[in-house]
Amino acid sequence: MDPGLLRGLREILGEAGLVERRNQRVPYECDGLAFARQLPELVLLPRNTDETARCMRLLDEAHVPIVARGAGTGLSGGATPVEHGVLIGTSRMRAILEIDERNRFARVQAGVVNVDLSHAVEQLGLFYAPDPSSQKACTLGGNVAENSGGPHCFRHGTTTRHVLGLVIVTPQGEVLDLSKARAEPEGLDLVGFFTGSEGMLGVATELTLRLTQTPPVVETWLALFRELDEACECVSDLIRARAEPSAIEILDQLTIEAVEASVLRAGYPKEAGAVLLLELEGRESEVAAQARILEPLVRARGAFELRRARDPAERTRLWAGRKGAYGAMGRVAPDLYVCDAVVPRRKLRELVRETTAICEARGLKVANVFHAGDGNLHPNISYDRRDKEELARVLDAGDAILKACLAAGGTLSGEHGIGLEKIGAMEWLFTREDLAAMCRAREAWDPECRMNPGKLIPMRACMETRT
Amino acid sequence: MDPGLLRGLREILGEAGLVERRNQRVPYECDGLAFARQLPELVLLPRNTDETARCMRLLDEAHVPIVARGAGTGLSGGATPVEHGVLIGTSRMRAILEIDERNRFARVQAGVVNVDLSHAVEQLGLFYAPDPSSQKACTLGGNVAENSGGPHCFRHGTTTRHVLGLVIVTPQGEVLDLSKARAEPEGLDLVGFFTGSEGMLGVATELTLRLTQTPPVVETWLALFRELDEACECVSDLIRARAEPSAIEILDQLTIEAVEASVLRAGYPKEAGAVLLLELEGRESEVAAQARILEPLVRARGAFELRRARDPAERTRLWAGRKGAYGAMGRVAPDLYVCDAVVPRRKLRELVRETTAICEARGLKVANVFHAGDGNLHPNISYDRRDKEELARVLDAGDAILKACLAAGGTLSGEHGIGLEKIGAMEWLFTREDLAAMCRAREAWDPECRMNPGKLIPMRACMETRT
Repeated sequence: MDPGLLRGLREILGEAGLVERRNQRVPYECDGLAFARQLPELVLLPRNTDETARCMRLLDEAHVPIVARGAGTGLSGGATPVEHGVLIGTSRMRAILEIDERNRFARVQAGVVNVDLSHAVEQLGLFYAPDPSSQKACTLGGNVAENSGGPHCFRHGTTTRHVLGLVIVTPQGEVLDLSKARAEPEGLDLVGFFTGSEGMLGVATELTLRLTQTPPVVETWLALFRELDEACECVSDLIRARAEPSAIEILDQLTIEAVEASVLRAGYPKEAGAVLLLELEGRESEVAAQARILEPLVRARGAFELRRARDPAERTRLWAGRKGAYGAMGRVAPDLYVCDAVVPRRKLRELVRETTAICEARGLKVANVFHAGDGNLHPNISYDRRDKEELARVLDAGDAILKACLAAGGTLSGEHGIGLEKIGAMEWLFTREDLAAMCRAREAWDPECRMNPGKLIPMRACMETRT
Repeated sequence: MDPGLLRGLREILGEAGLVERRNQRVPYECDGLAFARQLPELVLLPRNTDETARCMRLLDEAHVPIVARGAGTGLSGGATPVEHGVLIGTSRMRAILEIDERNRFARVQAGVVNVDLSHAVEQLGLFYAPDPSSQKACTLGGNVAENSGGPHCFRHGTTTRHVLGLVIVTPQGEVLDLSKARAEPEGLDLVGFFTGSEGMLGVATELTLRLTQTPPVVETWLALFRELDEACECVSDLIRARAEPSAIEILDQLTIEAVEASVLRAGYPKEAGAVLLLELEGRESEVAAQARILEPLVRARGAFELRRARDPAERTRLWAGRKGAYGAMGRVAPDLYVCDAVVPRRKLRELVRETTAICEARGLKVANVFHAGDGNLHPNISYDRRDKEELARVLDAGDAILKACLAAGGTLSGEHGIGLEKIGAMEWLFTREDLAAMCRAREAWDPECRMNPGKLIPMRACMETRT
C-alpha cells in the first residue's frame, strides 16, 4: 500500500480505525461462503459518514478497489475481499441515531446489528420486521446490501420494503443524503436501486428504516409429519385456504436430528420426518380464526401431532432451533454450504426431492431447512473445505440445484444474493443485453468498477459494453 | 420529419399505426395537466414489442426525442409531448398475454386498461390491487411509469409492489426481457428502478404483474362529520388502534356538493362537512373485529352518522362518488388542478387547513378529496386555463402548497409523479449531488437524454454532470 495513502487514511481514522497487521486481517478474509478467501490489503473502520467519505475520496484518487463488509454473515461471498483491495468494515458505526415512534421509523448507522434495532424499540410496541437467521449478528447495512429476507418476510416482505431512505457514500467519496423523502420514492428511485445492489454502487452509512407494530398476539405452532412430502404439500393447502400465517418454515429429519443433538434442544421430536413451523399473528380473534382454518388442513395432510407453544419460553426455543439450525449442522461436518434458490410454491415437494437426489448422487449429505411459504429452498450441504475433491462435488451439486430450480421456473436467489457464488449463473438467467444494461447502470455510479469487483455481474458482460 | 424516417416507420407500423394529420394529433397534445400543451410531430401506435423496438432503432439513428403515453390520464405532465418529438402511444397494445392462476400473476401488454385486468381475473377470485381514480381509463403501462397509487394502496402498496417483471425497449431499440425472474429481483434491480421512472429510461411493452386474492368479505363504511378537522383526527385514531381498513379516504364539503350535484349521486349527505370513506376487507370474523374497533372511535371523534353500505350496489355508488370526484368538479370550473403531496399523517388536519388558506389567500376555490390513510393530500383547485392571470395564481398556490408540505416533513408527490409539473421543486428537495446521481443513472440508459426530455430531472443538474 502506498505510504502516502496509508498516512492519509490514518489521519482520518486514527490508529483504532485501521487494521494493518496480517494476523488481525485474517478474520476478514471470508464471509459465510467459507471456501472463498482472500486477505484484504487493509481494513478500514470508519465511525461515521464523514470519515467514510474522506477515506473513499483518497481511495478514489489512488484507484484502489473497495469491498464493504457488515458482520460477514453473508452466504454468497458478497463481502469476500479482492486482491489489492481495501475492506471497509462498519463495526464502529453502531449508533441508533433517531427513533420516531409516531411516524414509525428509525435512523441508524449501517453497522447496527439487526436484532438490536428491534430490542431498542420493543418497549414502544414496535419491531424491525426482516429477520434473517443471522439476525443476532448481521448488520442492517449488510441486510440492505443483500436485500435480506428471513422467516417473517413471508408476511412482511424483504428488506427493500422496509428501507425508507439512505445516506450513501459514492465510490468517488460524494455523500448522497437520500433520507429526506420518506414516503414513496421521489424522482428516480436511487434508494430502491441501491438496496440489494451488493456493494457495487457505494457504501450506505446511514439507513432510515420502517418500524412495524408488534402484533398483540403471536402464536407459534409446530406440525409434525412422518414424511417431508406431506409437509411440503401442506404449505400449498394453507395458502390456498388463506390461513395466512406470518411464517411457514420446514425443517427436515437431518436438520431436526442436528438441532436436537446440539445445545439448542428446541424440542422437535426426533421421530418426525419433517417439522412445519408456523407463526400466527394479529388480534386474538384473528389468530383464533387462523388456527381454526389451519388445524383440519394440517391433520388432513397426515400430521401426527400439532401443538402450540404454551408460553414465550417455548416459542423462543422453537425459533432458536430454526434460527440456529445452520450452526447446529456444524456437528455433521466442519463446513456448510447453504444453497439458496426459489421455486414455484406448488413445486416444493418435487424440487426438494430433486435437489436431495442431486446431492445424494454426488455422495453428499444434505439437510433441508427452508422458507416454505416463499418457495425459498435452502438445501444445506455439509462438507469439509480442506477436502478439495469434496468441495468440487459440492460446487457441482450447487450448480445442478440452481439449474434444476431455474428449469422449474424458479430463480437464482431468494435472499442470499449473487455475490461471488452465483456470478456464473447470472448468464443462465439473463441475456447479454440484460447484463450489459446492468453494467451500464453500475458504471453510472462506478465507472472504474472499483466497488466489489468480480461480484454480482459477470465481468465479461461489462467488458462487452465497453467495446 | 425526415421523409426517409417517415417511410421507415410506415413500413414497420402500416398506415393504421401512424397518426400524421394535425387534427388527429391534437388529442395527444396534453395529458391531465391541461395547461401544458405541445403538439407532437408524429404519433406512433405500435402493436407489440418488436414493432416498438424497430421504430425506436430508427428514431435512435435519427436522434429524435420520444415521449411514451398510455391513456394520457396522468396529472403531472409526464406524457406532455416535446417539441420536434415523436409520441409513442400504447393504445394498440391491449392484449392480456397470460394469466397464471396458481402463481398469481398476469402478463399483459402495456396498453391494457387497469380495470380490464381485474375484470379478466375476477372469476378466478383474483384482482389487480393498485386502483387509481382513473382506473377505468388509465393503462397499466402508464401506472408503471408513474408508480401509480389509489385508495386501496393504503393496504396493498403502490404499483411498484405489484410489478414482477418487465419487457423494456431501451432508447437504442434494444429489448430487455426482464420478466423471467418473478420472485425477488436478481442482480441489479432494473425492473424496480424502471418502475416510476416516468418514461425516462425506455418504453415498457410487456408487464408481469402480481394478482391479489379477492377478500371473502368487503365492507364499505361511511362516517359523516360536521367538521373536516374531526375526520382528519379520526384517521390517526384508527391507525393507532390498528383498525387497519384497506382504504381511508376523506372528501370535504365542496367535493361532496359537487359529487351530489353531478350524475354520480353517490349518496353523501349534503349536510356533512366531511365524509370519511372506509373499506374493510378480510374474512368475516376479521371484518367484524375491525368494525368493532372502528365504531366507538368514529363516534368519539364526533361523527353524526356512521353507516355501512347495505349491498354491492350501494358500495359501488359510494366508490363511484370518490373515484368520479375529479370529473364532478367540472361543474365548478372548466379546469381542475389536482395537487399531490404527502405529509406526516399526524399533521393532516394542520396541512389541510394550511393548504386551504394558501388557496383562499389567492382567491382560488379549493376542494379536498384525498388518501388520508397515506397522508396523501389532493387539494383540487378549480380554474379556467384560458384566464392567464388565474392560471398564474393556481401555479403559485401549487408551489406554496408543496413548500408547506415539505416544511412539515412531507414529500413532493404521493402518486402523480414529478413530470413537467414539479421539475422545479426537485431542487427544493434534493441537493445538486443527489440530482447529478440521478442524471448519471439516467444517462446510463439514455446518453442522449432523448426519452421524455425536460421531465423529472432538472436539466441544469444534467448539464452540470457533463462539465
